[in-house]
Amino acid sequence: MKMIHIILYFLALLSYTSHATTTSVNDFCVANLLLPNTPSGYPCKPPLLVTENDFVFSKLVPGIPIPPFNAGTTPATVTNLPGLNGLGISVERVDIGINGTVPMHIHPDATELLIMVEGQMTAGFITPTKLIVKTLNPGDVMVFPRGLMHFQLNSGVGKTYAFAAYSSTNPTLHIVDILLFGNKLPTPTLEKTTLLDSAQIKKLKAQFGGSG
Amino acid sequence: MKMIHIILYFLALLSYTSHATTTSVNDFCVANLLLPNTPSGYPCKPPLLVTENDFVFSKLVPGIPIPPFNAGTTPATVTNLPGLNGLGISVERVDIGINGTVPMHIHPDATELLIMVEGQMTAGFITPTKLIVKTLNPGDVMVFPRGLMHFQLNSGVGKTYAFAAYSSTNPTLHIVDILLFGNKLPTPTLEKTTLLDSAQIKKLKAQFGGSG
Amino acid sequence: MKMIHIILYFLALLSYTSHATTTSVNDFCVANLLLPNTPSGYPCKPPLLVTENDFVFSKLVPGIPIPPFNAGTTPATVTNLPGLNGLGISVERVDIGINGTVPMHIHPDATELLIMVEGQMTAGFITPTKLIVKTLNPGDVMVFPRGLMHFQLNSGVGKTYAFAAYSSTNPTLHIVDILLFGNKLPTPTLEKTTLLDSAQIKKLKAQFGGSG
Amino acid sequence: MKMIHIILYFLALLSYTSHATTTSVNDFCVANLLLPNTPSGYPCKPPLLVTENDFVFSKLVPGIPIPPFNAGTTPATVTNLPGLNGLGISVERVDIGINGTVPMHIHPDATELLIMVEGQMTAGFITPTKLIVKTLNPGDVMVFPRGLMHFQLNSGVGKTYAFAAYSSTNPTLHIVDILLFGNKLPTPTLEKTTLLDSAQIKKLKAQFGGSG
Amino acid sequence: MKMIHIILYFLALLSYTSHATTTSVNDFCVANLLLPNTPSGYPCKPPLLVTENDFVFSKLVPGIPIPPFNAGTTPATVTNLPGLNGLGISVERVDIGINGTVPMHIHPDATELLIMVEGQMTAGFITPTKLIVKTLNPGDVMVFPRGLMHFQLNSGVGKTYAFAAYSSTNPTLHIVDILLFGNKLPTPTLEKTTLLDSAQIKKLKAQFGGSG
Amino acid sequence: MKMIHIILYFLALLSYTSHATTTSVNDFCVANLLLPNTPSGYPCKPPLLVTENDFVFSKLVPGIPIPPFNAGTTPATVTNLPGLNGLGISVERVDIGINGTVPMHIHPDATELLIMVEGQMTAGFITPTKLIVKTLNPGDVMVFPRGLMHFQLNSGVGKTYAFAAYSSTNPTLHIVDILLFGNKLPTPTLEKTTLLDSAQIKKLKAQFGGSG
Repeated sequence: MKMIHIILYFLALLSYTSHATTTSVNDFCVANLLLPNTPSGYPCKPPLLVTENDFVFSKLVPGIPIPPFNAGTTPATVTNLPGLNGLGISVERVDIGINGTVPMHIHPDATELLIMVEGQMTAGFITPTKLIVKTLNPGDVMVFPRGLMHFQLNSGVGKTYAFAAYSSTNPTLHIVDILLFGNKLPTPTLEKTTLLDSAQIKKLKAQFGGSG
Repeated sequence: MKMIHIILYFLALLSYTSHATTTSVNDFCVANLLLPNTPSGYPCKPPLLVTENDFVFSKLVPGIPIPPFNAGTTPATVTNLPGLNGLGISVERVDIGINGTVPMHIHPDATELLIMVEGQMTAGFITPTKLIVKTLNPGDVMVFPRGLMHFQLNSGVGKTYAFAAYSSTNPTLHIVDILLFGNKLPTPTLEKTTLLDSAQIKKLKAQFGGSG
Repeated sequence: MKMIHIILYFLALLSYTSHATTTSVNDFCVANLLLPNTPSGYPCKPPLLVTENDFVFSKLVPGIPIPPFNAGTTPATVTNLPGLNGLGISVERVDIGINGTVPMHIHPDATELLIMVEGQMTAGFITPTKLIVKTLNPGDVMVFPRGLMHFQLNSGVGKTYAFAAYSSTNPTLHIVDILLFGNKLPTPTLEKTTLLDSAQIKKLKAQFGGSG
Repeated sequence: MKMIHIILYFLALLSYTSHATTTSVNDFCVANLLLPNTPSGYPCKPPLLVTENDFVFSKLVPGIPIPPFNAGTTPATVTNLPGLNGLGISVERVDIGINGTVPMHIHPDATELLIMVEGQMTAGFITPTKLIVKTLNPGDVMVFPRGLMHFQLNSGVGKTYAFAAYSSTNPTLHIVDILLFGNKLPTPTLEKTTLLDSAQIKKLKAQFGGSG
Repeated sequence: MKMIHIILYFLALLSYTSHATTTSVNDFCVANLLLPNTPSGYPCKPPLLVTENDFVFSKLVPGIPIPPFNAGTTPATVTNLPGLNGLGISVERVDIGINGTVPMHIHPDATELLIMVEGQMTAGFITPTKLIVKTLNPGDVMVFPRGLMHFQLNSGVGKTYAFAAYSSTNPTLHIVDILLFGNKLPTPTLEKTTLLDSAQIKKLKAQFGGSG
Repeated sequence: MKMIHIILYFLALLSYTSHATTTSVNDFCVANLLLPNTPSGYPCKPPLLVTENDFVFSKLVPGIPIPPFNAGTTPATVTNLPGLNGLGISVERVDIGINGTVPMHIHPDATELLIMVEGQMTAGFITPTKLIVKTLNPGDVMVFPRGLMHFQLNSGVGKTYAFAAYSSTNPTLHIVDILLFGNKLPTPTLEKTTLLDSAQIKKLKAQFGGSG
């Protein structure tokens, strides 16, 4: 924690408390990212320190493609757009290169609404009793209800991109491969709880940095 | 209510109730738009009648420009994308022609997250103590916290468009001019409650279809 | 921030943390107004420092009339009645002098429930498709759903007053005139986004302290 | 269920469904009291059938005093003010005669905000570790956090009345005496679970209509 | 839909509506499972038809072990314990035989709280940056936050059982193997979105009834 | 507040803020019990300091029986199982000795779900219009909706125990006798608000430590 942060912290506290009894603050609650988060979001920045930049994010550009999936994402969530705090929404740009994919994943507490802009994707989500799959083109919008496993893949001839709006200010991305193969969960435990073969597990652990 | 609707209604009820005790339905709750809405959203369609089309909307195309504002919107909300039901999110395409504007308005119970795609907009929102205005270009994202008065106008040389994500499955658009001048609220009442001049009120009533 | 505040802050923290593991605090969460607000409300005062005064506000008296509206309000919200914190309710006394009015306004995130006590008011709210107006007398109660534009005016021969209960611990008052004419939003922008005439805008900017 | 109700029901359904795809209904959701309630409130009346009377209740007059407490209440809740549906607020007028009392009671899921208008009350609420009691006069407002046991009694020389706003559209009143002594819960069970003497229990059962 | 259901439905509606204006129903809202669900839960049974059996479930016995996992579950959720409706909680008994496992799974919208009663389990959950694993014995309680992937396996010498409480009235069980291998999602799509080998996919599709 | 706490506090703040912009923290929010609570729960511990012990409580053993009720409870709530923070659920072990009882009580903001394990209990809850009582045996589950007065008593021949899951991370126990007789509320006030006889009140005040 740099000295500047400590100073900013006390400045914030100072201007905040000195106005606490005269200023109403609930038209918005811009995140003070220097203070600890709470279950309902970050504490509010003092209104006097809030500027227009707290409500605008300016680089929703194509994300760097991540191998081996050849897809990249750029999020505008509460940590870089603090005006979103407490408002239950955020957005991400999703770019998928030729032959690329956003692999099987889950957003534990957010619905995703995918807005197609360019190219073609095939996307789907899965419940124990339903498989919903669609090929999407520009102008299509698809809903992925919260917590359901889903995927998107580039099914067109060129690159493709979309915007994904989320019903959360800070959705997390849980890629199944990273959950299963990117940590130290022992191979025998994985065999037993996924029924995958040991060789398959080891191959993917090597790819995703897992051990054990 | 056409006969086909009555039949569909009973079909829905039928397939629903006959499976009620064996099927879990809370992975999603697709809106049954034939039944009355509730404060938490529409009753759920029977899972057996749900298809992939309930989760995809395919015509998020430019909306027809509305005079005199030269702007058009196309929403994908629960009434045309029933898979959104109960999930607290929706989206709209906003197109503004040259010199056009989305005039001063409010979404009474929804935060708006504007995702710029083409052209240039100047947008802002207002509270009693803050005026937040920004000129936005493609790649910019701006937050308009729920219930606050705001506007967007085309400040570029060509047309402009954006996607607006909302933290509601069915946000409504309350344009200040339509609220004030599009109904029978008597001119003296308007004068008193807005301090606008009577001539100004009458001029705008003529334009927005108001009387009184 | 006065020294006394710093001392109080640490006193609070101290007594709080030293009892954190033995005391249950969720029967109530009295606002500690010295700490930053959060999206769910203020942090809780240590239970040991809570007194009956945290739950009682004693001056819900007639507010000072504000010109030119000849109406005044006295709120009992979380900032002066800290026991309301986290409980989603507050109240205000609304007094309107002869010929006075509470002008067109919005509470962005609160429903208002108006309880008439004395005199006569005419009140209404507006949606794009409905105009709801009623003349109210003592014993009448009227609902103004959250986020909708509404007004109250004294339509009787003497002064009038009512209590307004809100579904928020800290409702804000967004008077349309103050939003539009009380800041630096440039007149050409206002012309374009409200269709009001430039002369009208300038006249009201002069009245409400706006510039530009 | 009278024929008129059946007709109204189908009329409602009819006008509702025939407009479902073109009308936005979430600015408000007036209770259709003819349909079953849900955990979030009643289904919505079709917007076309909504009138100003759905948002106004006109008889918040003194309630009839109930012996032996000499206090009466008149509620304006969702069942007589259907515009409250889904909005989380309601109000009640509370009149207490000389020497009267609103006895120990609980609102299981609502905070109460008491607004004193006339006379004097002594009121209090109780938690396992706090006793909060205050004498209240006109202009005082007191909070009773949700679910806590509380009471009000007339401590002045004349009658007294107040308005009680609630953070629920349909708060229920659980008077401890009625819960304990107004039903068939056997006296031995009551003795064991309250430690009250059997004679005391029988005396109060006689008063509140209990048996067993 | 059997005739008895239709009769029950109208009986319910009848007794309900005829008391709607005089009875407060929000102390509880027992699910009427014959009517369609909503995002907030089922419509309420008429209070007059509610009995003690709506609040008690009597067979939380060991579930039948499902091969190949040798584990069985018995749920008490809103569909067999209708008094839970709208209350956000439910429970399940989880029995795991020797060498058995509750394989990798997700509850999309529910936190799980596991209460160990007999035997020994090793349990864990996974996020992209954390692996939380513990060996649990009787008297241990473990939290699995909502939407996170987790597993339990019998790591003791005999059988083991626990109760799992959920923060939902109707949690669903999404076993990863069933999501991936129990439907018609084509093998090439699975290869691409999971990086599993085609042979591995086909082997598990055979086991879980998938095709394509 | 010990020095170690101050150090831990700053360590936490330090590690937190230095990662705030790169780490997503909303998969879970483990309570930092050293910081003040908020209406939505405690501020989150820095993810780097979170361990598996934050998600496991290991002593859900029989509680010490409290005279005169001969019943004991052991809770696993957010204050001893900090991983529950923000997740709306907790659990308690309830043991009742021979002839013992959990006397009339209320959980002001939590539903209780009782899971019988051993022995026999008779349990019930009361509303102004319903009395729900059942005798429960192992394998029975009973719901007590939030805020309703209820009791459990040992109606078997040996000791009995159950687990009680709650829809709150920190439910409080409001025993009616302790509320009425364990504080300084004057006897005349109690007489008036409960209609209990003065002698009865004094007898129970002596037992529960009340005065006045």
